[in-house]
Amino acid sequence: MRNTAVLLIACPDNKGLVAAIANFLLKHNANILHADQHQDSAAGLFLMRVEWALEGFELGLHKFDESFGPIAVKHDMAWNLSLSSVRPRMAIFVSKLDHCLADLLYRHHAGELYCDIPLIISNHPDTHWLAEAYKIPFQHIPVSKENKQEAEAQQRALLEAHHVDFMVLARYMQVLSSGFIAHYLNRIINIHHSFLPAFHGAKPYQRAFDRGVKLIGATSHYVTEDLDDGPIIEQDVTRISHRDDLETLVQKGADLEKVVLSRAVRWHIDNRILVYGNKTVVFD
Amino acid sequence: MRNTAVLLIACPDNKGLVAAIANFLLKHNANILHADQHQDSAAGLFLMRVEWALEGFELGLHKFDESFGPIAVKHDMAWNLSLSSVRPRMAIFVSKLDHCLADLLYRHHAGELYCDIPLIISNHPDTHWLAEAYKIPFQHIPVSKENKQEAEAQQRALLEAHHVDFMVLARYMQVLSSGFIAHYLNRIINIHHSFLPAFHGAKPYQRAFDRGVKLIGATSHYVTEDLDDGPIIEQDVTRISHRDDLETLVQKGADLEKVVLSRAVRWHIDNRILVYGNKTVVFD
Amino acid sequence: MRNTAVLLIACPDNKGLVAAIANFLLKHNANILHADQHQDSAAGLFLMRVEWALEGFELGLHKFDESFGPIAVKHDMAWNLSLSSVRPRMAIFVSKLDHCLADLLYRHHAGELYCDIPLIISNHPDTHWLAEAYKIPFQHIPVSKENKQEAEAQQRALLEAHHVDFMVLARYMQVLSSGFIAHYLNRIINIHHSFLPAFHGAKPYQRAFDRGVKLIGATSHYVTEDLDDGPIIEQDVTRISHRDDLETLVQKGADLEKVVLSRAVRWHIDNRILVYGNKTVVFD
Amino acid sequence: MRNTAVLLIACPDNKGLVAAIANFLLKHNANILHADQHQDSAAGLFLMRVEWALEGFELGLHKFDESFGPIAVKHDMAWNLSLSSVRPRMAIFVSKLDHCLADLLYRHHAGELYCDIPLIISNHPDTHWLAEAYKIPFQHIPVSKENKQEAEAQQRALLEAHHVDFMVLARYMQVLSSGFIAHYLNRIINIHHSFLPAFHGAKPYQRAFDRGVKLIGATSHYVTEDLDDGPIIEQDVTRISHRDDLETLVQKGADLEKVVLSRAVRWHIDNRILVYGNKTVVFD
Repeated sequence: MRNTAVLLIACPDNKGLVAAIANFLLKHNANILHADQHQDSAAGLFLMRVEWALEGFELGLHKFDESFGPIAVKHDMAWNLSLSSVRPRMAIFVSKLDHCLADLLYRHHAGELYCDIPLIISNHPDTHWLAEAYKIPFQHIPVSKENKQEAEAQQRALLEAHHVDFMVLARYMQVLSSGFIAHYLNRIINIHHSFLPAFHGAKPYQRAFDRGVKLIGATSHYVTEDLDDGPIIEQDVTRISHRDDLETLVQKGADLEKVVLSRAVRWHIDNRILVYGNKTVVFD
Repeated sequence: MRNTAVLLIACPDNKGLVAAIANFLLKHNANILHADQHQDSAAGLFLMRVEWALEGFELGLHKFDESFGPIAVKHDMAWNLSLSSVRPRMAIFVSKLDHCLADLLYRHHAGELYCDIPLIISNHPDTHWLAEAYKIPFQHIPVSKENKQEAEAQQRALLEAHHVDFMVLARYMQVLSSGFIAHYLNRIINIHHSFLPAFHGAKPYQRAFDRGVKLIGATSHYVTEDLDDGPIIEQDVTRISHRDDLETLVQKGADLEKVVLSRAVRWHIDNRILVYGNKTVVFD
Repeated sequence: MRNTAVLLIACPDNKGLVAAIANFLLKHNANILHADQHQDSAAGLFLMRVEWALEGFELGLHKFDESFGPIAVKHDMAWNLSLSSVRPRMAIFVSKLDHCLADLLYRHHAGELYCDIPLIISNHPDTHWLAEAYKIPFQHIPVSKENKQEAEAQQRALLEAHHVDFMVLARYMQVLSSGFIAHYLNRIINIHHSFLPAFHGAKPYQRAFDRGVKLIGATSHYVTEDLDDGPIIEQDVTRISHRDDLETLVQKGADLEKVVLSRAVRWHIDNRILVYGNKTVVFD
Repeated sequence: MRNTAVLLIACPDNKGLVAAIANFLLKHNANILHADQHQDSAAGLFLMRVEWALEGFELGLHKFDESFGPIAVKHDMAWNLSLSSVRPRMAIFVSKLDHCLADLLYRHHAGELYCDIPLIISNHPDTHWLAEAYKIPFQHIPVSKENKQEAEAQQRALLEAHHVDFMVLARYMQVLSSGFIAHYLNRIINIHHSFLPAFHGAKPYQRAFDRGVKLIGATSHYVTEDLDDGPIIEQDVTRISHRDDLETLVQKGADLEKVVLSRAVRWHIDNRILVYGNKTVVFD
């Protein structure tokens, strides 16, 4: 059913880029389904996402690189080709709080997330039952100060063994090492329970409550070495009032976290996100 | 400062459309600033908006028609070229309620609406002072059952004399004739004080209050013969509660009306709206 | 932990009502935790919700009726007392679409909904696995034109056998009989997948798509004999654009339905909703 | 038309508070129109707003203090009585940006803000024309490093001469001295063009743009010595995307600022705001 190719491109802005890409696709008889582009005039960048039907496309995909390569070189393009028929493989990291995990598993079951989930990794056994209900393999890897390095080695071995393409930290309460993050650059999606950059760091709901804000938020972002400072993918907020104590605030926030994280995951799977600098373009 | 051309295109969807347009623009050395397209797969339609810098563009605009015509004919395109340097001429129709008028005049003054306002027409004298404050000519044309036809004739004569391109009904309480509407098809923008199609027709706030809805809305749309049924350009809503009586509900609604109407007007001026069937695409 | 009493009152507005209630509570040494009141001046009604701690309250609840009765009679009050320590018993009706069911079950598991769920009733077996995952009894009662009456009799017998207090129609696709509805007046909560009164009736998403609206909505309401016309409890909307086809529109709508329905259910459980006429007051 | 009294109360939470207040009002034959209360259980505080009709109220207001005083003393209440018939006197401070000023003046004209505006003070002459259009006195007081103290003395003299009750900083770009702020504690309302505490300080739009946030916000708050750290009255946000450059972001933000500031001003005028600690309760 899904049988399309998606090409993401970023390059210095220049005349003739759209024509070059459109002509290349036309030459191979592509039927373009969606195309969206963005020029960041401040950065002098051209960013594009184009999706076409593979039915009738006359270039074998194994030859795409060879065929598109010269165009990419000429225009200094960074590019990435993906096929919508290929389900990317997503691992979910979780601790004790299970609302984001439950939400992702339900959406996966409902067909909203076109991916495989070969693996849930948790430092606690609490969510095992959810994994079982949705028939997803679950690995309990306790993490402590002492075993942190080993635990991470074990996690990475599992990720490789299961050919994981990207990871979601669904309220995973452990910090990953720089090496881990570097290896999966722009492939680890986190949910932070505040409207970043506000309440960056620990206990954002408590701090929001103490500050007396009138809205609380949630932010999904790619994980970088700087905690909570990675490229933002999506944010949303909800209204609170003086009637909300910390408990109802946390509850309202949980609803936000679920929605904001699941949007980011879906967009990542659908190859809608281009990271440039510390920002993202999300092609809708 | 604003020196770009905008081309809006609608045609049957087909391979090679993007390439045809991109090649045409490249051939004349256009520097594309924004391009956005949409395929309505249900309707089999291709819709596009492309904007390019005129600096360096090597085709004289007086020759655009001749030069682009054959491409348009080949692909059965409906198209429209506009220049961002040309301020369209907007007339505002208003009755007694002045919040939308005041908002449009302020935005025009602030540079948010790149248009000229040669004329405000009202069936009441009440808003004359506002027109004066913003130095916009004001015409008081009373309308009654008896003089409806004459009044409209007078209005149309004024619109022509002032070379008006499009009109905004800023809570204008009179119904326009079919002939008037047909003459200015997709060039009359109305604001309706409900979330259409809910509370279509008279007294939407009262009916919203009586029904006990939890949100109220506003809708801007192009005027067609079927009252409140024209193509929707923009909508928004705001939350109300049992604490809102009809008066505060009307007040909250007024804020919505201003924002929703002004967005529609700005998008119309910036040639971002394509009407097809009874729907709109708003290229953002 | 939860050990409070909630009193909901509706009566003709008059002087001395707050004093009468406050004095009654003070006399029995009640520690008021929340009190909220509303006067509908158009209807001449006084509506109040007051919640107090039972610890230290010196009136035995079995004597509440006797003790409060004279005050209620004097002021012509309709009133209802409930205890937050008592979990109301909720039945969920569902058909094939499972997103609202999954959401309610997860929230119940997470402690957001302080109720018991003795029963899920469905006219299809599809959601049995979800009921099992959350360990909730599931009854499959097929419904057809022929067996409609019997099926309903079977449903009602089950509801009585399980001492069900209220029901949630979580996208249940069958219409209930007048008798059924009358028996459970203001105790059946439905979710309609549009912003009522817009797209009242069948296929609201399709009709929203065809009309070209810019926002879609969901509405939870108490079920009355007039389909989709009962007192509205909660509504919300989300933005869509021309990029949304019917499928993504349905998907975005599902997220709304879950949130809007779960809010209504929580408020019902917490005795926050007062129905009067065809409206609700939701005390927050 | 408006002929009510509003009593705001804050005191340690205790049994019998509602009864004490209700009985006091009943004794003097008050017809309560709205009453709302809030208990902050963490802080052990009781906060209340009660509004009653003065028609039929049998206690002369000159005797209110004497009559209510003993109750207030007994319960250690901080309280404030105000009359809705008395228009508070508001001064507006503005610099060059005029969108908030224009919005406030229009709302005042439209009857949304029940106050008098004896004075607009600006450090630039640019908005003089707006003041004239709405017939409000305008004082141009240039401010520089050198004359800062004198300028403030001049401002304060004007405020006193005009019996100003509270001030609105409608994008006023000068910092006020501690003495000034202390004198008008909780009587100076500022609008900050970010979702505080994010982008606290200078150039919030630029920094929001650079950080790549997906929503921008505005915050109205009472001014305290700590810049941008005073009690928050209201906040709101709007969605932006990669398509927004700094200019459109500023434009979208301006719409937020207007709405957020005007709500705060209206609530202040209607005596709906209780400041406690560094937070506010806004009784709706």
